[in-house]
Amino acid sequence: MPPAQELTLALWQCPYLSDASRVLDRLDHAAAQARAQGADLLVCPEMSLTGYAIGAQAVQALAEPADGPMAQAVSMVARHHGLAIVYGYPERHPDGKLPYNAVQMIDGQGHRLARYAKTHLFGDVDRGQFSPGAAIAPVFVWRGWRLGLLICYDVEFPETVRVLGLQGADLVLVPTANMRAYDAVPRLLVPARACENRLWVAYANACGQDAAFEYGGLSTVAGPEGSLLAQAGRDEALLCVRLQLADGQEARALGQWPCRRPELYQALVSPSDPG
Amino acid sequence: MPPAQELTLALWQCPYLSDASRVLDRLDHAAAQARAQGADLLVCPEMSLTGYAIGAQAVQALAEPADGPMAQAVSMVARHHGLAIVYGYPERHPDGKLPYNAVQMIDGQGHRLARYAKTHLFGDVDRGQFSPGAAIAPVFVWRGWRLGLLICYDVEFPETVRVLGLQGADLVLVPTANMRAYDAVPRLLVPARACENRLWVAYANACGQDAAFEYGGLSTVAGPEGSLLAQAGRDEALLCVRLQLADGQEARALGQWPCRRPELYQALVSPSDPG
Repeated sequence: MPPAQELTLALWQCPYLSDASRVLDRLDHAAAQARAQGADLLVCPEMSLTGYAIGAQAVQALAEPADGPMAQAVSMVARHHGLAIVYGYPERHPDGKLPYNAVQMIDGQGHRLARYAKTHLFGDVDRGQFSPGAAIAPVFVWRGWRLGLLICYDVEFPETVRVLGLQGADLVLVPTANMRAYDAVPRLLVPARACENRLWVAYANACGQDAAFEYGGLSTVAGPEGSLLAQAGRDEALLCVRLQLADGQEARALGQWPCRRPELYQALVSPSDPG
Repeated sequence: MPPAQELTLALWQCPYLSDASRVLDRLDHAAAQARAQGADLLVCPEMSLTGYAIGAQAVQALAEPADGPMAQAVSMVARHHGLAIVYGYPERHPDGKLPYNAVQMIDGQGHRLARYAKTHLFGDVDRGQFSPGAAIAPVFVWRGWRLGLLICYDVEFPETVRVLGLQGADLVLVPTANMRAYDAVPRLLVPARACENRLWVAYANACGQDAAFEYGGLSTVAGPEGSLLAQAGRDEALLCVRLQLADGQEARALGQWPCRRPELYQALVSPSDPG
């Protein structure tokens, strides 16, 4: 067995800014704070660089490729602080359709490591602004950790985290823009996803209000036994949690994996849903 | 839309008895109490008629067909009180292998309505005593309610309840023998199953100790929003909860069903699991 590998994870719960020119300064400041607390990785909310419910026209205007100017700016911040960053942004669709609601992870050397486009679009706000992603992104390895990426509504579906768990994910990172009406997600579903799959789930929410919604905060890190390792309140916060890879591996060995009966689950992949 | 249909559900949390001759008397007494509180349906723990961790030899000796003497006795109790009963028993395997860990529902007229054999066996205690069931039993209709049956460890797998939810289940009944070490199941996973599938889950646990285990009680009825409608403590208890079918139908209309992406879940039915 490899030696225990530690990771200090920071979740940045912040309001959306109406003044776009301040977004990168603010990210730089949060990255400095996180690094000062020993963080190796900073996870920001969904669409953290542009705002979330900004309308189809703004989303289209701000969308960029995965290696666009916003990515380059985040890369500079990451390199400057020696800190990996997961951030959300609108990604230009190759066919000119509505952009993707995307997240990307950039490591502490400034390299783009992994990218994911939201597959489960939520209500009119998502469907009016975004095209759905084509696939659940495969688990990727960073510093010995197997990481998965999901966005907001995705994590409410047990299937998504299960797919990542079946790939051996240690930690699933979930930038989100969860409204105050849906507190059951951080309070109940996020810990349940962690527990049933024996992995960590980090759920980084926005807070405050924009023109359309009030975001509920309650950013959460849930552990492989389903326990709440950290949970923010309603206001801006930087949560820092130290994780030991060996704890998750130990929990996984006691997990449900060998007892699954995939031959009984065919209905889960059938195209017909109840009305 | 049909008129609102009410159901008063009773969960009987009880210890296993070492004196088998008292089991039916005790069931008769619990049924009388439940009926006096207006219950239409009484759900008992896993293997409620024989005890759970009684060893392979005792299980084999006590196993019977689904219409055997224990079923006939429960049918008399149900008819006498005009109350449907879900109970657990060891069911004889047609090929002489280890019996099934089964549950059966008998209606208030004494008719056998549905039967299910546990598909996800838990640890040495289950695998040493039982053969696994071959299928998740289809949802069945009773008094206008679409009901599903699962047993204990089954409900910890998100796939099982999802399969029933996809069939439009309103209420999943889960007789269980959950040990005290696994409180996360009633506290976290049962409410999450209810919430993510927008249905009720009724989880009827044993309490007290037998020669092998200490059972944790905490029998639970969770509602389609994930709320705890009722939860017992550690001791013997009869929980009664009145449910309105229309509440579940309303919740389901707001649920995730149309947003699922079954084409992305193929890994869930693949036979290979991580080591």
